[in-house]
Amino acid sequence: MRNVVLNLAVTLDGYIAGPNGEYDWCFTDADYGMTNFLKSVDATVMGGKSYRLMIHYGPPYPEFTNYVFSRTEKETPFKNVVFVPDNIPTFVKHLKQKSGKNIWLFGGSEIIHPLLQENLVDEMILSVHPILLGGGLPLFKKLAERKIFQLADTITYPTGLVQLIYKK
Amino acid sequence: MRNVVLNLAVTLDGYIAGPNGEYDWCFTDADYGMTNFLKSVDATVMGGKSYRLMIHYGPPYPEFTNYVFSRTEKETPFKNVVFVPDNIPTFVKHLKQKSGKNIWLFGGSEIIHPLLQENLVDEMILSVHPILLGGGLPLFKKLAERKIFQLADTITYPTGLVQLIYKK
Repeated sequence: MRNVVLNLAVTLDGYIAGPNGEYDWCFTDADYGMTNFLKSVDATVMGGKSYRLMIHYGPPYPEFTNYVFSRTEKETPFKNVVFVPDNIPTFVKHLKQKSGKNIWLFGGSEIIHPLLQENLVDEMILSVHPILLGGGLPLFKKLAERKIFQLADTITYPTGLVQLIYKK
Repeated sequence: MRNVVLNLAVTLDGYIAGPNGEYDWCFTDADYGMTNFLKSVDATVMGGKSYRLMIHYGPPYPEFTNYVFSRTEKETPFKNVVFVPDNIPTFVKHLKQKSGKNIWLFGGSEIIHPLLQENLVDEMILSVHPILLGGGLPLFKKLAERKIFQLADTITYPTGLVQLIYKK
């Protein structure tokens, strides 16, 4: 079965972007394991906001099928973008059963939240940046119950970025 | 000058206690560096809620002077508890100038927040537990501006607890 892997940058105070979507605080001086990670996935799942932010900067990852949960988006110039208006956890449950590489849970929190709630997030790679952003878009929302993870690895980089890798 | 050191347990989703103050999720199977840390401090600063929670379980650390920021608390059976009704950052600025060991910033977020805001937190030792609590008392509140820290060390324990140590 394919794993759903959350992989993103987060601040010490738990934000994935600033109040206006800023991510200028993210370190870009090194690869931070991204090249290897990209080889391990062939699909992304994301929300409409993340999709619009992504295509603002360029076409979506061409080698992946990009599933975008959106009730409003209907048309796209990109052949590898699929809009999914349906129940997010049900769709991801089916996607996990199909053959393929891992699935990159791209964000944002409105997509991460229902998948965490339904225990559908198999792995979390959190790149903790040494900054308090002070406000913005939080990674985690409130959950109905506690979720315990297993620490799989920690990687410390010279910039002070710490990657915390957890498995379900 | 004495350093103000924030040292506490935090969940992956940034809570220092559950909705009703629960901290049963904190690992207690090992020392996690606490014995050495306690040798490095001789004073604590905390809020009224943290004080009441602490004395509910027993007397405050006898070897420390415990400064409790509270406008309502006036009397205490403990000789080493000092109530401070005044402006928190001003008091801590003065305390830092006095001779002594480091000052343990004990919590909660209503005390941590103004000290972070005024750049008075010199070190943060965050014991990140591998759990999403789903709700509770958050460690960090909103700040007026970004605060950058330097990663000083990371310590990974067999239980999956990761200590992230930052300096100003």
